[in-house]
Amino acid sequence: MSHPGIGGSHVSSRAAILDVIRAAGTISRVELTQVTAFSAPTVSTVVRRLIDDGLVVEVGQGESTGGKPRVMLELDPSARYAIGVHLDHAGITYVIANLGGAIVARWRQPGAGFDEPPDVVARVAAEIDATVARIGIERDRLLGLGVVSPGPISASTGMTLAPPLMRAWTEFPLATAIEDAVGLPVLLDNDATAAAIGEYWSGGVSTGTAFAALYMGSGIGAGILVDGSVYRGTSSNAGEIGHICLDLDGPECWCGGRGCVEALAGPAAVVAQAREAGLELPGRGVSDDFAHLARAAARGAPAPMALLERSAGYVAVATLGLCNVLDLAEVVLTGPSFALAGSLYLPVIQEHLSRSFFARGSHGVRVGISSHAPEAAAVGGAALVLQAELAPRTRPRLKSEPAEASLAG
Amino acid sequence: MSHPGIGGSHVSSRAAILDVIRAAGTISRVELTQVTAFSAPTVSTVVRRLIDDGLVVEVGQGESTGGKPRVMLELDPSARYAIGVHLDHAGITYVIANLGGAIVARWRQPGAGFDEPPDVVARVAAEIDATVARIGIERDRLLGLGVVSPGPISASTGMTLAPPLMRAWTEFPLATAIEDAVGLPVLLDNDATAAAIGEYWSGGVSTGTAFAALYMGSGIGAGILVDGSVYRGTSSNAGEIGHICLDLDGPECWCGGRGCVEALAGPAAVVAQAREAGLELPGRGVSDDFAHLARAAARGAPAPMALLERSAGYVAVATLGLCNVLDLAEVVLTGPSFALAGSLYLPVIQEHLSRSFFARGSHGVRVGISSHAPEAAAVGGAALVLQAELAPRTRPRLKSEPAEASLAG
Repeated sequence: MSHPGIGGSHVSSRAAILDVIRAAGTISRVELTQVTAFSAPTVSTVVRRLIDDGLVVEVGQGESTGGKPRVMLELDPSARYAIGVHLDHAGITYVIANLGGAIVARWRQPGAGFDEPPDVVARVAAEIDATVARIGIERDRLLGLGVVSPGPISASTGMTLAPPLMRAWTEFPLATAIEDAVGLPVLLDNDATAAAIGEYWSGGVSTGTAFAALYMGSGIGAGILVDGSVYRGTSSNAGEIGHICLDLDGPECWCGGRGCVEALAGPAAVVAQAREAGLELPGRGVSDDFAHLARAAARGAPAPMALLERSAGYVAVATLGLCNVLDLAEVVLTGPSFALAGSLYLPVIQEHLSRSFFARGSHGVRVGISSHAPEAAAVGGAALVLQAELAPRTRPRLKSEPAEASLAG
Repeated sequence: MSHPGIGGSHVSSRAAILDVIRAAGTISRVELTQVTAFSAPTVSTVVRRLIDDGLVVEVGQGESTGGKPRVMLELDPSARYAIGVHLDHAGITYVIANLGGAIVARWRQPGAGFDEPPDVVARVAAEIDATVARIGIERDRLLGLGVVSPGPISASTGMTLAPPLMRAWTEFPLATAIEDAVGLPVLLDNDATAAAIGEYWSGGVSTGTAFAALYMGSGIGAGILVDGSVYRGTSSNAGEIGHICLDLDGPECWCGGRGCVEALAGPAAVVAQAREAGLELPGRGVSDDFAHLARAAARGAPAPMALLERSAGYVAVATLGLCNVLDLAEVVLTGPSFALAGSLYLPVIQEHLSRSFFARGSHGVRVGISSHAPEAAAVGGAALVLQAELAPRTRPRLKSEPAEASLAG
């Protein structure tokens, strides 16, 4: 586990020390001084405040090296909580994580559908209030809400270009509206970036590498982390590999382009191809239909297998492009569609990378499937909030900050 | 002009203050204190040492605000020099830049060709010795050498996967060999990354943006800068957009992939397509032949125009992919092939971006042609060295450092 920026002036000593305590599990003040390179008085003052605020507790006593035994410090995981909300057309997923990163509640409700955004926001607020009350978390222990949505986001307006099924959300002031309704600070991010932070946060990523979470829900995107910091780009819209073009004469995409990976090989495209091929589908939406195809392919049904292998070929080529552009060391497949079909995509991606990754003379690219792929976006939402509290150098953009402030580097 | 990391602990006060003086042109100690947020005693001590080392000189006097007139400080541009060498099959380009970034010498010699790498290294060393002696630069004013080569590089071995015409260079310890032969510190980078740093360094890039230099020589690559820091990836091989796949059934590429942009639309591909179409070409190599086609297209010759427009379409789609993955704000076309044909590629790239750039709801992508496109790699080589001296936070990887140390972020 690396500790971004420890000892550097960019991170508050409080956040740095808190993060070291969290990562260590149990640690003494002396060890904190050694690990962080902060002075003993600084460590002592910061620890005192963390204890006063209830974030850290003194527990038992460590091994003595002679003289008086050391008091050990631990994070109190139940001192604070973060809520993650994944807002999508087909479903809204909620998780509550404690300060230690453990998920203490997770549930799913009907999606935004075609409801008016203000109505959906009211629904989200009521849902959170009810659950927080039911499981008995005091309100002042809630750090905030990480709201995760598909599509490009903007600090001031929410989604600037919503995917087709969520057109009503374009230009809707998502963060402000939820902040007002819930009464908690809100961090906003897209599904893939949140999933990448969640993966890093939950220990699913090796240390110190350039890493991408490939997120496949109803669309395809990537969240990029470099040495633990999110690469966001100019307007927090980096990682849009679903809109890499793989066929100049390919089908039109909702983004305005042509032959995009998403239009050729995304779940909606696979479902449409299955329908054209006359395959029987449940017909309750892309997620369900794609799940149906993935299960059939896993059982060895030839037509669904062929469709998914074709999709995997395109996704593999896009992943190869992403790896070449970013010189990645690691890719994790995540999101609900990879939760279902990741094992079919994984070998195809691995094969393309081992054959053609440009920097393969220097290093390979590790590819795996996330252990919490189904609810990766909601877990990522909670991770956004925890990361903002514990490692502010890499915090997601707060809604009142200008885009420039969030550039990686 | 932004000053990466000023006041931060990651940058030495010396480099930060030197960079502010350089960017300001003329500045007083008081203004330095205001701009950098260093304390007056720190500024005073650092400036004293810079003057002792001959890097900074006291000049005239600024406007007085009452009391004694202020002494103004300026960089002595002739205090130090940096050499840039662009090593390529067809030609070796040299530039010498002074500390202020001005190019004081530039010349070109026959390329590496099929000569043995040690012989070429001996040739480079002799060339540099002769020119430095001829123009009368004292050796202790030479900061170092930035050596720029095509293809993936590795800290320890030089090019790990050289392009076809430079196969002999694979695994050759380029940096060490040149360092031994020339007797100066050597920084190694690929052409596109060096060109990006050169562009930033010479003021060709707006402040605080995610930016890529698209470099087209005989191949195509991109150098990526985020807020003034190079994005390098895991092994300094980021930005390989020449090996984004645009056609799964396309022609085989030397990298091991299929349908790569470079294989479909790079200068070598365009020249091969011209030959297949029966067009007459000088036949003295790809650079010359591509130059011939570019000039013919500029004169309006239909067949060369059609070939270049087809190439521009592919390059535009790859650029769009790069912009989507990195959420770029700015792209500069550079390198010898864009020096010749950039004006044909520019409108095609602009059109694709304005129609399909994913984050266009938030911002556009500015596209331009570099003002020193023909020798961008050699200028970049010198910029590597100047940047290492003046802004060490963003310095390129020194050959003795592990790859991990150079991750952006």
